[in-house]
Amino acid sequence: CSASQIQTVTLIPGDGIGPEISDAVMKIFEAAKAPIQWEERNVTAIQGPGGKWMIPPDAKESMDRNKIGLKGPLKTPIAAGHPSMNLLLRKTFDLYANVRPCVSIEGYKTPYTDVNLVTIRENTEGEYSGIEHVIVDGVVQSIKLITEQASQRIAEYAFEYARNNQRASVTAVHKANIMRMSDGLFLRKCREAAEKHKDVKFTEMYLDTVCLNMVQDPTQFDVLVMPNLYGDILSDLCAGLIGGLGVTPSGNIGANGVAIFESVHGTAPDIAGKDMANPTALLLSAVMMLRHMGLHSHGNNIETACFDTIRDKKVLTKDLGGNSKCSEFTEAICQRVRDMN
Amino acid sequence: CSASQIQTVTLIPGDGIGPEISDAVMKIFEAAKAPIQWEERNVTAIQGPGGKWMIPPDAKESMDRNKIGLKGPLKTPIAAGHPSMNLLLRKTFDLYANVRPCVSIEGYKTPYTDVNLVTIRENTEGEYSGIEHVIVDGVVQSIKLITEQASQRIAEYAFEYARNNQRASVTAVHKANIMRMSDGLFLRKCREAAEKHKDVKFTEMYLDTVCLNMVQDPTQFDVLVMPNLYGDILSDLCAGLIGGLGVTPSGNIGANGVAIFESVHGTAPDIAGKDMANPTALLLSAVMMLRHMGLHSHGNNIETACFDTIRDKKVLTKDLGGNSKCSEFTEAICQRVRDMN
Ligand SMILES: CC(C)[C@H](C(=O)O)[C@@H](O)C(=O)O
Ligand SMILES: CC(C)[C@H](C(=O)O)[C@@H](O)C(=O)O
Repeated sequence: CSASQIQTVTLIPGDGIGPEISDAVMKIFEAAKAPIQWEERNVTAIQGPGGKWMIPPDAKESMDRNKIGLKGPLKTPIAAGHPSMNLLLRKTFDLYANVRPCVSIEGYKTPYTDVNLVTIRENTEGEYSGIEHVIVDGVVQSIKLITEQASQRIAEYAFEYARNNQRASVTAVHKANIMRMSDGLFLRKCREAAEKHKDVKFTEMYLDTVCLNMVQDPTQFDVLVMPNLYGDILSDLCAGLIGGLGVTPSGNIGANGVAIFESVHGTAPDIAGKDMANPTALLLSAVMMLRHMGLHSHGNNIETACFDTIRDKKVLTKDLGGNSKCSEFTEAICQRVRDMN
Repeated sequence: CSASQIQTVTLIPGDGIGPEISDAVMKIFEAAKAPIQWEERNVTAIQGPGGKWMIPPDAKESMDRNKIGLKGPLKTPIAAGHPSMNLLLRKTFDLYANVRPCVSIEGYKTPYTDVNLVTIRENTEGEYSGIEHVIVDGVVQSIKLITEQASQRIAEYAFEYARNNQRASVTAVHKANIMRMSDGLFLRKCREAAEKHKDVKFTEMYLDTVCLNMVQDPTQFDVLVMPNLYGDILSDLCAGLIGGLGVTPSGNIGANGVAIFESVHGTAPDIAGKDMANPTALLLSAVMMLRHMGLHSHGNNIETACFDTIRDKKVLTKDLGGNSKCSEFTEAICQRVRDMN
């Protein structure tokens, strides 16, 4: 690769095991000769003028310039009024689509095989509007906000995603039988997008029915698109089907190519710094990132090396059922990647 | 049993397969000599003065008098503005707790064994408030209403239920990290109820985490209590774990002993009248009803007969993997029940 092709990515290592697994990803990227240069930034929230919470200016500036970020886990703030950093990042860069492919990993046993689906979650509004009131003492309302614009944007994204990723169908997940106006609007926008993308099959299903069918036979699902809270629930449920958040990648997509890819597991402070962490979720998120950047062959090689290492069962971290260190698991993947070059 | 002990129950057979499976339940109750007398009522919604939807007066009067009802599936109304009959019934009789025990059925194979949990869903408010507005063109809000009174009532119910049913723990399921005020209020009331019931273990979990953990290992859960929509989702998910709505009982509990027990599956119009339906969900709901009425030994006998018939695998309806008729399956259960007397 010539130097001119090298792209810079903002790396937010995160807290707890974040630095270790970020390190693992960087090593594997180097072994794979991925044309990526990392720009590390911290994102502890700071308070700007008027007490407004914001991410540090140098992190914002880096993301604005590079457009693409990779992010490890961030610890959940405990101070009252302190926002979730994950939510603040989504908001700051208007990352409107949360995309989580859930694919069964051969060799990693769960009650399910052949899961191969993608949840696409509206990431900016709905139940996450943050608007709440006390009406009278003991009576509280939370407002779920659904807009035509955000619904249309996410519906369009789902169909574009299906087309670009050779996926046959999109299912809109809703409760428009109960929230007739809000979920009704969301659903209408999905139907309109379906009209424009006749090459992709479209179905509609109630969220409760999806959950029931999902645990009975997840292979019936392909791409699923839904409002914010339903996506929060369903993406975690689906992650559970294939082995949990330790092996599930995630991407937050915004307009004009802006995107942050992240592992969605916790910071695991109990094992931090002990060379015991499993870097798979962050690595597979980084693979999503490579594909998003058009670097498909690098992405495919790394993914294959990772899956082969897991299937092989010889070098696995503890949570994957083995007794190898993070560094050993990482080196096993590096070795396979090197062998491909 | 002397005649004086006979209690009258309002029976709402429902639509589609409703009459057949109600018939099956009545036969099995007769075989078990359950001291129950049925009073059949239809509940097609009618429009009262001012266009208000209501259930027919004779059904309301029967329920008001008997307090206890058993209900088959009702077809979902398609006319615009026509309410869901299920919701209308919950509202009319203020059935504030929806209780669904999910217990693995031996002999009926699913990816899970040893599931034994109960979801308790707040049934009157939350996301089901029905309050929605268009703010400006293309911007809709739905209001989630959480009150101290309803939260306290359901939290208390969950702990009472745990105590009365020899259950060790109650988990409050919430998203108070996002809906800090509404789910926060719900959670606070659960904590207060926990303080009063120190004999029952109390934990709190995010809904997304519960879904993830549930599909990985449902045996870790016991009694779960949650706001309306979360209960809608989680109760269906859990039903999926043990074989679906065809084998899952449900009870809607109100104040002063008022309760309606129901199967929550659909009306299955395609097989209605063909003697093919599976009466298990309605029968197990009727068993819940017997226990609610203090008729434990009748309930236990019928439940045992039903589970033994399923485990035996000789006489099963099609959906359970056999090729027997509804009437044959029913007779097999009756035979076992008679043998117990
Ligand atoms: C950390 C939390 C605020 C977040 C959410 O609820 O969206 C998480 O569960 C997720 O899915 O990314
Ligand atoms: C029929 C429908 C309105 C209902 C609900 O959403 O509550 C159903 O899904 C249920 O769980 O009883």
